[in-house]
Amino acid sequence: MTTPEAREEAVLEAVRKRRERVNDAIPEELPIQKPERLYEASRYLLDAGGKRLRPTVLLTAGESLVDAEPLTTDYREFPTLYGAGDDSSAAAAGPDTIDLMDAAVSVEVIQSFTLIHDDIMDDDDLRRGVPAVHREYDLETAILAGDTLYSKAFEIMLETGAAPDRAVEALNILATTCTKICEGQSLDVTFEERDDVTPDEYLEMVEQKTAVLYAASACLPAVLLGADDETIDALYGYGLDIGRAFQIQDDVLDLTVPSEKLGKQRGSDLVENKQTLITVHAREQGVDVESLVDTDDVDAVTEAEIDDAVAELEAAGSIGYANEMARDLVAQGKERLEVLPDNEARELLFDIADYLIERGY
Amino acid sequence: MTTPEAREEAVLEAVRKRRERVNDAIPEELPIQKPERLYEASRYLLDAGGKRLRPTVLLTAGESLVDAEPLTTDYREFPTLYGAGDDSSAAAAGPDTIDLMDAAVSVEVIQSFTLIHDDIMDDDDLRRGVPAVHREYDLETAILAGDTLYSKAFEIMLETGAAPDRAVEALNILATTCTKICEGQSLDVTFEERDDVTPDEYLEMVEQKTAVLYAASACLPAVLLGADDETIDALYGYGLDIGRAFQIQDDVLDLTVPSEKLGKQRGSDLVENKQTLITVHAREQGVDVESLVDTDDVDAVTEAEIDDAVAELEAAGSIGYANEMARDLVAQGKERLEVLPDNEARELLFDIADYLIERGY
Repeated sequence: MTTPEAREEAVLEAVRKRRERVNDAIPEELPIQKPERLYEASRYLLDAGGKRLRPTVLLTAGESLVDAEPLTTDYREFPTLYGAGDDSSAAAAGPDTIDLMDAAVSVEVIQSFTLIHDDIMDDDDLRRGVPAVHREYDLETAILAGDTLYSKAFEIMLETGAAPDRAVEALNILATTCTKICEGQSLDVTFEERDDVTPDEYLEMVEQKTAVLYAASACLPAVLLGADDETIDALYGYGLDIGRAFQIQDDVLDLTVPSEKLGKQRGSDLVENKQTLITVHAREQGVDVESLVDTDDVDAVTEAEIDDAVAELEAAGSIGYANEMARDLVAQGKERLEVLPDNEARELLFDIADYLIERGY
Repeated sequence: MTTPEAREEAVLEAVRKRRERVNDAIPEELPIQKPERLYEASRYLLDAGGKRLRPTVLLTAGESLVDAEPLTTDYREFPTLYGAGDDSSAAAAGPDTIDLMDAAVSVEVIQSFTLIHDDIMDDDDLRRGVPAVHREYDLETAILAGDTLYSKAFEIMLETGAAPDRAVEALNILATTCTKICEGQSLDVTFEERDDVTPDEYLEMVEQKTAVLYAASACLPAVLLGADDETIDALYGYGLDIGRAFQIQDDVLDLTVPSEKLGKQRGSDLVENKQTLITVHAREQGVDVESLVDTDDVDAVTEAEIDDAVAELEAAGSIGYANEMARDLVAQGKERLEVLPDNEARELLFDIADYLIERGY
């Protein structure tokens, strides 16, 4: 048995190595071309960093599906499940290899598009420690940069070389995922004006706004490589579970991680009156959530105010509730992976799930 | 020979009848669902009107391709070119009918998405005689409504039931078209800060911002119905030509049609210092374009100021230049249609091309 620390170190190393390859692929798929200002703005947030968790989930799920030794196979010429001999109908109708990296870049590009537009809608100034795109450039350029990434994500997803029926299914997953993200963001905006959001409503919003892109990332390799429906559904479910856990953990971290490490003010969700699983639970416990922090200006709030608010939320059991919910979702997501071959890549998908709730930031 | 008036009446009637069917299909493809505010905002501009020229081009090109009597065939179960007996390889690989209306609605939805985001970027208050979406709702909702329409357009285009290889090609055309529209809009924004834009640069911008969606509309039925590459390319070229002509004519109409009829202030392009083919030509003729209208506030400009500006642009030959360019493009576009069977629908595509530059508004 390896220690938890060694496993976390291993997952970080595995994520880092895939991130490097994704980072190499991004300028290949999204070169700075005319009009330069548009493409520079489109690349700005992608180049500013990011853990590339969604592409990592996608690439690793692909490795597990075809039973490949992690990081030994060229993602650009990735072996499919066609011709493996166990599915005669599929064997006739698919290519030997596809460009799985295209799919990985595509989901990261979608993620970046949603961040750019979300920052406009939330009027956030900072993202990944740098100015938001509408601050670094301007509103017009930020809207247009997001719109460009949107269509580019579809273009890139169309370049995998997958069998046409699978490409159509992948595009459909990508499109419906984007629609759900918009619906989730719309719910999130309306939640800010409500004081009666329930935990179930909150979780539904998180599923739409955040988890569906993890779900798409996990199941897309199965779709593109020619796996069966049971496998596709199981991976989709895994992504949905860990994606919700990720967002819940994000809400916890917003309260518990120092501002320097977060790259933004700790407790900003409370200051901005954003609903989180923690606040909707606390309200049900009778906590006067709106009074936890007096100011609604992130630049004016003090660390002491945040400390007091966190203490009250802990006393109400709300942070524990969120932690437990995240743990349950991760356990459920891991169970779904039994459909995959037992291999090193599957272990890594387990570890990524654990990492999402054990990470420090 | 029919008179020009009778032909214009016929084309308007043909457009009107297709518009009715498109208008019926829009709520079927984009029902108001949860979250209601998001979908209401997404439908707001679509429901406010619009000539539906792009869907009309698409549906009519489809009718010509399969030699159908106009308006007698159900667009939802539209016969394909597969199995027609003259292309054995295609005959094996395509459905007997597809839902061509889905494709028509998809391009109109893309058009509506671009209008919503463009109105934010241009800070325009009115569109189709009603408040722009970011005025009727708010900035956040307008961004999100546009984003929702974006992915919905892809979802709808995926529902045609076309052969998978053709569906992939159609999606690729839709995605690259959206990218070009963003690039064109980006150019348009940068042009506002420049005083040395050439007619060629302007025409390139128009091609990207406006004409590519006409090109996509014209060629998509050929793609989806299983036509050959020559036909696809010819229809794409037709759309590109008439789309450019349409935009050039739009620029002319902005100067020559009364405000009441336009639904916005006549000459607003001049007031807002927007480049048009007319102003870039006039500048080359030595006209001091920036001084044509003193104010930069559309609410403050007088009709007399606009009249004087138009007279100066006419004297410089710039309005005539634009008119001639539009006529040449329409003639070129019509020539490309020789690839189509000689039938009533093709005649209508000729007439639509003429209408785009002969229309009064």
